[in-house]
Amino acid sequence: MLGAIEAGGTKFVCAVGTVEGELIERIQVDTEMPEQTMPKVIAFFQKHPIEALGIGSFGPIDIEKASNTYGNITSTPKPGWGNYPFVETMKEALDVPIEFNTDVNAAALGELMHGAAKGLDSCLYITVGTGIGAGAVVQGNLLQGLSHPEMGHVLVRRHPEDTYKGRCPYHGDCVEGMAAGPAIEERWGKKGLQLADRHEVWELEAYYLAQALMQYILIVSPKKIIMGGGVMKQAQIFSLVHKQLQELLNGYVAMPQISERINEYIVPPALGDDAGITGALMLAKQALESKA
Amino acid sequence: MLGAIEAGGTKFVCAVGTVEGELIERIQVDTEMPEQTMPKVIAFFQKHPIEALGIGSFGPIDIEKASNTYGNITSTPKPGWGNYPFVETMKEALDVPIEFNTDVNAAALGELMHGAAKGLDSCLYITVGTGIGAGAVVQGNLLQGLSHPEMGHVLVRRHPEDTYKGRCPYHGDCVEGMAAGPAIEERWGKKGLQLADRHEVWELEAYYLAQALMQYILIVSPKKIIMGGGVMKQAQIFSLVHKQLQELLNGYVAMPQISERINEYIVPPALGDDAGITGALMLAKQALESKA
Ligand SMILES: Nc1ncnc2c1ncn2[C@@H]1O[C@H](COP(=O)(O)OP(=O)(O)O)[C@@H](O)[C@H]1O
Ligand SMILES: Nc1ncnc2c1ncn2[C@@H]1O[C@H](COP(=O)(O)OP(=O)(O)O)[C@@H](O)[C@H]1O
Ligand SMILES: [Zn+2]
Ligand SMILES: [Zn+2]
Repeated sequence: MLGAIEAGGTKFVCAVGTVEGELIERIQVDTEMPEQTMPKVIAFFQKHPIEALGIGSFGPIDIEKASNTYGNITSTPKPGWGNYPFVETMKEALDVPIEFNTDVNAAALGELMHGAAKGLDSCLYITVGTGIGAGAVVQGNLLQGLSHPEMGHVLVRRHPEDTYKGRCPYHGDCVEGMAAGPAIEERWGKKGLQLADRHEVWELEAYYLAQALMQYILIVSPKKIIMGGGVMKQAQIFSLVHKQLQELLNGYVAMPQISERINEYIVPPALGDDAGITGALMLAKQALESKA
Repeated sequence: MLGAIEAGGTKFVCAVGTVEGELIERIQVDTEMPEQTMPKVIAFFQKHPIEALGIGSFGPIDIEKASNTYGNITSTPKPGWGNYPFVETMKEALDVPIEFNTDVNAAALGELMHGAAKGLDSCLYITVGTGIGAGAVVQGNLLQGLSHPEMGHVLVRRHPEDTYKGRCPYHGDCVEGMAAGPAIEERWGKKGLQLADRHEVWELEAYYLAQALMQYILIVSPKKIIMGGGVMKQAQIFSLVHKQLQELLNGYVAMPQISERINEYIVPPALGDDAGITGALMLAKQALESKA
């Protein structure tokens, strides 16, 4: 059996499953301080013994294996989790091979292996929720360089009629600052769910998201883009993003996937809310294969 | 002996050299119509027989090996070169293994194997010249997905005092439209070289280039960024870009390469104007190894 953890800012999902990506058993644990949360996580895997573990975590995290602080959550403002040695803690408790990556890189891997990008060697997964983040598989590998991607903070152009200042603590009006769930709520004074029938809300949302996708396409040229997270439950956003992105690209990148079949190119997760945890399970598979 | 072609919009460089990246013999041929240019290119390699050929070409080009139109220059406005079967033509003439990629992906490979990014598995090369383009090596592979990257067209925010409209035929004021050599010339009424002592010119140039680099860093997180092309001969741009990029990122991406040693992170090409042709030679090496 393989183990998987999707470590999020509000909850941890822990699961065991098979190398084929089937999830057998799972629990959900609130994200409190590590001293509260981690014993519950560990206890789950002690009850369900595993051969390898995959972790998709909120970030920023250190995924550079040669680094001293590999396997840590690094500079999060979340109390107790700054510089937390996640991999080391799990290794000490379970002594199994572990692969560690971002929650969104894991989700991209999940969708590539068992979801909307099955059969491809490349895809990008973006979540639009409490924050905005994205991960990608490029030529079969999870995207990684100096660090993991931080795609949620790309610059966007403000809509000329949008006076909302943005709420990213670093950049103000980057795409996360302008278009994540809390920005929608602050700008319009209501939660996204309550704004479902306000067309202008989703037009503006698509205006910013399409700009972010344009940058992603021009820079990494993914073979499929999967948009998940709470905000994307507003399924009406998809066609608005399709349209605005085509307008922005304006015929540049002359690929039929974009000009003719964009509704098959930018899609919701086929695994629904299980993209991340399934991807974490696939990280466990990689850990098993490489005995990391 | 290996062969290399750097196919540019104004000139082709053809060279022969070694698997170690040493260039032995070279010629330069003007980019006219294919009927004028290609016989000269082929004649050079008939005089200097080679075992494999690497081509770094202006684009857009088709680099998807499974595609019907693999090896073609695709939709260029350059007379005679639209849908030109570059690889097929060379294969018929020389019958050797060929690797084909963009000029900027080749330059990234050249700098990675023999230049400023030696020893790393990742770098990004951007040229700021007649156009703006960038290529990258990610985890040892030349970046490729649905197509090759088109990073020169990322969106940037206009400077509030800049009234120049931009000259990209697709997007108007994307980074190429605002900051390539011809945009500098049109905005200020003089060529870049004649504007060397006008500080405001390079401040504004750095304002746009830093935004593009910010997007590249957030999205692919390269381990080194190499800036080449005619405009970057204005070496003063480097420190302006360093400063503006740090301001834009504002402490996000907390890597010492960016916060402490940015002058070693964003650098000129160690191979100077030979990055592209050296990279094409390294493509030939890859062709030889894989017998493509
Ligand atoms: N159906 C919905 N329509 C619009 N917004 C939603 C919907 N469901 C959740 N959201 C918003 O998405 C955000 C939460 O995102 P979610 O992906 O569920 O969690 P997280 O990002 O914390 O993992 C909140 O800002 C919430 O208001
Ligand atoms: N020393 C220089 N300072 C500023 N701009 C320059 C300089 N040299 C060339 N340029 C500009 O760079 C552009 C040509 O770029 P270059 O990289 O030489 O060619 P290409 O992009 O066509 O391969 C022109 O717009 C030119 O004005
Ligand atoms: Zn931000
Ligand atoms: Zn453009």
